[in-house]
Amino acid sequence: MRVLILGGDGYLGWPTALRFSARGHEVTVVDNFARRRWVEGAGSDSLTPILDLERRIDAWAEVSGDRIRSFVGTVEDGDFLDGIVAETRPEAVIHYGQQPSAPYSMASRETAVETQRANVIGNLNLLFSIRDHVPECHLVKLGTMGEYGQPNIDIEEGYLDIEHKGRKDTLPFPKLPASLYHCSKVHDSTNIHFACRTWGLRATDLNQGVVYGVATEETARDERLITRFDYDELFGTVLNRFCVQAVIGHPLTVYGSGGQTRGFLNIRDTLQCVELAVATPAEQGEFRVFNQFTEQFSVLDLAHLVKQAGEHLGYSVELQHCENPRVEKEEHYYNAIHTKLLDLGLEPTLLGEELVQSMLHIIERHRDRVIERAILPHTTWKAGELEGEIAAPAGDS
Amino acid sequence: MRVLILGGDGYLGWPTALRFSARGHEVTVVDNFARRRWVEGAGSDSLTPILDLERRIDAWAEVSGDRIRSFVGTVEDGDFLDGIVAETRPEAVIHYGQQPSAPYSMASRETAVETQRANVIGNLNLLFSIRDHVPECHLVKLGTMGEYGQPNIDIEEGYLDIEHKGRKDTLPFPKLPASLYHCSKVHDSTNIHFACRTWGLRATDLNQGVVYGVATEETARDERLITRFDYDELFGTVLNRFCVQAVIGHPLTVYGSGGQTRGFLNIRDTLQCVELAVATPAEQGEFRVFNQFTEQFSVLDLAHLVKQAGEHLGYSVELQHCENPRVEKEEHYYNAIHTKLLDLGLEPTLLGEELVQSMLHIIERHRDRVIERAILPHTTWKAGELEGEIAAPAGDS
Repeated sequence: MRVLILGGDGYLGWPTALRFSARGHEVTVVDNFARRRWVEGAGSDSLTPILDLERRIDAWAEVSGDRIRSFVGTVEDGDFLDGIVAETRPEAVIHYGQQPSAPYSMASRETAVETQRANVIGNLNLLFSIRDHVPECHLVKLGTMGEYGQPNIDIEEGYLDIEHKGRKDTLPFPKLPASLYHCSKVHDSTNIHFACRTWGLRATDLNQGVVYGVATEETARDERLITRFDYDELFGTVLNRFCVQAVIGHPLTVYGSGGQTRGFLNIRDTLQCVELAVATPAEQGEFRVFNQFTEQFSVLDLAHLVKQAGEHLGYSVELQHCENPRVEKEEHYYNAIHTKLLDLGLEPTLLGEELVQSMLHIIERHRDRVIERAILPHTTWKAGELEGEIAAPAGDS
Repeated sequence: MRVLILGGDGYLGWPTALRFSARGHEVTVVDNFARRRWVEGAGSDSLTPILDLERRIDAWAEVSGDRIRSFVGTVEDGDFLDGIVAETRPEAVIHYGQQPSAPYSMASRETAVETQRANVIGNLNLLFSIRDHVPECHLVKLGTMGEYGQPNIDIEEGYLDIEHKGRKDTLPFPKLPASLYHCSKVHDSTNIHFACRTWGLRATDLNQGVVYGVATEETARDERLITRFDYDELFGTVLNRFCVQAVIGHPLTVYGSGGQTRGFLNIRDTLQCVELAVATPAEQGEFRVFNQFTEQFSVLDLAHLVKQAGEHLGYSVELQHCENPRVEKEEHYYNAIHTKLLDLGLEPTLLGEELVQSMLHIIERHRDRVIERAILPHTTWKAGELEGEIAAPAGDS
């Protein structure tokens, strides 16, 4: 199958490209290296020493015998993207090519505008190119569980059956996005749904939970194939950040009470889910939504797990509650349905002490690359507060 | 009160500026004249001969003794807008400064991207400027009833009380926007709601129906104060277009069966509603949504009304069903609640034959300015169809 992966140099995009190439698909990746620049601009760097795209593609060709094709540029440039879609005529497009950080989107007017412009316009360009060149192509779009926010009812997969004043309809699940980044993903969902209803396109929106982990089957085949791993306040997801903190002897920074509950999944399961979605595409005209995570945890659950796993390896691990830089409920109802990918055959890689320890071992190997000052939160949801403030370690550390 | 009106040179923005100035408020308008350029770019022009902004402001000063302040530029330029908000410190911002045409947004990738970029980024810039300079300012944002689409349940005002699996919440009303323009307005609503929840801003989203009419109390005071009036396929709303067709002896072009039902209101009521919203602002942190229309009609209802009113004035009026350029249900359930503005004191100006005849009289005065080739639909919701095709007149004409 001809598969086009936007954002194919990223944390998830690169391992996805390897997976589809390993399965014998004809893979093309597009990237403008914005993620590398954003992380470096924030004074941080990938923990793992990643090669540039050209060299990692060469390494993969050497290891596997398969060559991934690449284009360098931004999906915000509609003519650039349109030319690639016209030329490569993909049967599936997997769209990771977006600004993925909630804190980055909240840092300033400029980063907020950059996030929404890059994400919304890039995705809109893609919809037109699919419509005009490959209307039967299956769009697999990475959304996020954070689009739903924290409603007081169960979160369904994309739609809600509503009965109201004696009449019924099935309508898009109402959204309460948690940041301007999450808003941008809601905008994308709205646009994609419209394109499916109006132009008969077909799409799967993968509302993904928080991803953790670093190794996948293919990246583990050669050290030159490793994917990036971010732990900084802007681009590091919470479990990855806690693991780095455990290794370098920094207290695990729990935002607020730590009662915030979310869906999580292993990076290996991201690949499984994307493969399953591509293997069983949406129907023409269908906008299909899957909630893509395997387990729910609170932030405090994760901190305690990392503490336990770290201590069993001989690390001394403390917890430190710091002022929550985000505006979010810290104690709240949370129950998100996630059965559709299981129905397609997803076999979850569950989180446990052993898995955390394997992450700690990988981090240990790159310990000298950790930039400690990039970890603590400085970016707040409210204007101008919290700069440089961290609360004293709390009792349960 | 210090009132900032974005899009203050437009069809609704200009009469709104006059109204608030006439009421003794300190009015500033911002416009980049994009509407004038878009309409001219589409080969059309305002039916009414409008003065340029500077001269109509001078005329208003002469008539009323009050001077409206103006800035020329685009709200997409965040620094430009931020400087204006910082300098004028508005207590209310009325935001009309957007690309308002559904067909224009569907014409091409370029116009779709232009629409979403202009609307979403302009509005996002505004939210940051209010947060940073005048957090107590009341944002009055023009939304549209088309954000809701055509659900099979009653349309409530912005929110829906949901009971689901034994739990309850009040959540944003699910949206099925009808074009990429309408999608952009949904994006705006999502962003504004987020800003109210997160930053404590206060906003009223006026989900407006289709506006008709040309004269308001203030524009009628001097012919130099007249507002623009568009009747072309892109920027002309349906009743305005029918009235122009009746006057020039062109069949009224009904898209499809004409069963499409929507909410409508007179331009005089737009001003009433905006005044009511400003006079009774939302609370800090509140995102308030009003459905702003006075009556529901089907397209065919309006065609028959114009035919009757026209014939009583001696015009010969035919109806012509043409292929619907839009993707929409032509026969559907539609019942939208609209009580909140009535509760605040809105006194509807109902549509009847007399009102249509007063519009026909105004149009008659400018009849020689009508550009007939701009009226017929060429812009379709699907790519590349319908170009130049018009069905033969149907039986009920």
